[in-house]
Amino acid sequence: MCVASKNSAIVLFSGGLDSTTTLAIADKNSSDLIALTLNYSQKHHFEIEASKKIIKKYKNVCHVIFDVDLAKIGGSALTDDSIKVPESETTKGIPITYVPARNTIFLSIAAAYAEKNNIKDIYIGVNSIDYSGYPDCREEFIKSFEETINLGTKRGVEGKSIKIHTPLIHLKKSEIISEGIKLDVDYSLTLSCYEPSLSGEACGKCDSCHYRKEGFRDAKISDPTIYKK
Amino acid sequence: MCVASKNSAIVLFSGGLDSTTTLAIADKNSSDLIALTLNYSQKHHFEIEASKKIIKKYKNVCHVIFDVDLAKIGGSALTDDSIKVPESETTKGIPITYVPARNTIFLSIAAAYAEKNNIKDIYIGVNSIDYSGYPDCREEFIKSFEETINLGTKRGVEGKSIKIHTPLIHLKKSEIISEGIKLDVDYSLTLSCYEPSLSGEACGKCDSCHYRKEGFRDAKISDPTIYKK
Repeated sequence: MCVASKNSAIVLFSGGLDSTTTLAIADKNSSDLIALTLNYSQKHHFEIEASKKIIKKYKNVCHVIFDVDLAKIGGSALTDDSIKVPESETTKGIPITYVPARNTIFLSIAAAYAEKNNIKDIYIGVNSIDYSGYPDCREEFIKSFEETINLGTKRGVEGKSIKIHTPLIHLKKSEIISEGIKLDVDYSLTLSCYEPSLSGEACGKCDSCHYRKEGFRDAKISDPTIYKK
Repeated sequence: MCVASKNSAIVLFSGGLDSTTTLAIADKNSSDLIALTLNYSQKHHFEIEASKKIIKKYKNVCHVIFDVDLAKIGGSALTDDSIKVPESETTKGIPITYVPARNTIFLSIAAAYAEKNNIKDIYIGVNSIDYSGYPDCREEFIKSFEETINLGTKRGVEGKSIKIHTPLIHLKKSEIISEGIKLDVDYSLTLSCYEPSLSGEACGKCDSCHYRKEGFRDAKISDPTIYKK
């Protein structure tokens, strides 16, 4: 059971590069964070293990792992055994790694925790520059969700609105990494890869590895990721 | 695995009076329904059993029970062992039976099924006349959610928008019951009570029993509910 305080916030925290940077930013701004990791039966389940390792460094963070079995719904290369994770996609449009309504589901669960614990602030590490083109990572979606949740919760109706923070939304991947380095993020522990080995080595080929690699290169920071041989 | 067709729809279906009426309405309008029942660790878990009995009558409905453990979040008399289900509440404001962000979570999961199965229509039996004052049963919330989900899904971005139907929203409880009777709903199988006995007898005292009893009385229809002695 996490104990919230007046200055608490909730961070959606997958164990990846973006959400770990977001956690570090939120940790600077708030005390007594709740880091909410969704175990959604993702194939890259190793990110749950990554999240557990990363969180040890943050003293005032309560880590919650919440199960929601999106593999039962399927329809994404990240959750559906019948769909292969592609190598970095060059086709336009929304890629097959998009998970149906994922961020709406995750933000809804975060909002439930916010409501229960009397918390105003939710952080999510969405980014609409170096990203895979997922509709639920765009600013207009987040702003709309914020309006909706303030109509659909007690907090909202009582005027104590929920605020969704997206500190990475307009940053390039290289800028995210530079920001994280300033905040002492250990990127060697984070997992971005959609298809890692059982021991967490990144494939180096999927979309997410592609953006991560480019980010370290552009930031002129040595990439600590261990890639499969 | 449910098989969807061009005329499919998804119905959020709890096994209660409102959602069963909504199911009957959707069944009239669509073929190959997916009835989505959320097992959210509700104390009145008997409603899941009710949903299984009710669904047997509907031939073209695929029943999906999806787990999302809202008791882990708590904060409601319906999910939290430390909060007692009250007798019918006369105090104003949002009652303690309100479950934080429940309909946002449920609609998000329904939207994920819609996205995966290429379905446009989602039905939800919310009602803002004879209801407990939950913020996420109001029309303005539903309309806002519809906008949000169309910004946050592939369907929406591609112009194949998701439509959320609320056929009961402006009906009195008695009107809902009259409509259901016309559609041959067997209300003896439905469970509305927040605190039923283990065998499904209604308490007769909670808010939900209160509105249900009044509904049958006002509709001048014999109440088939079995109440605890």
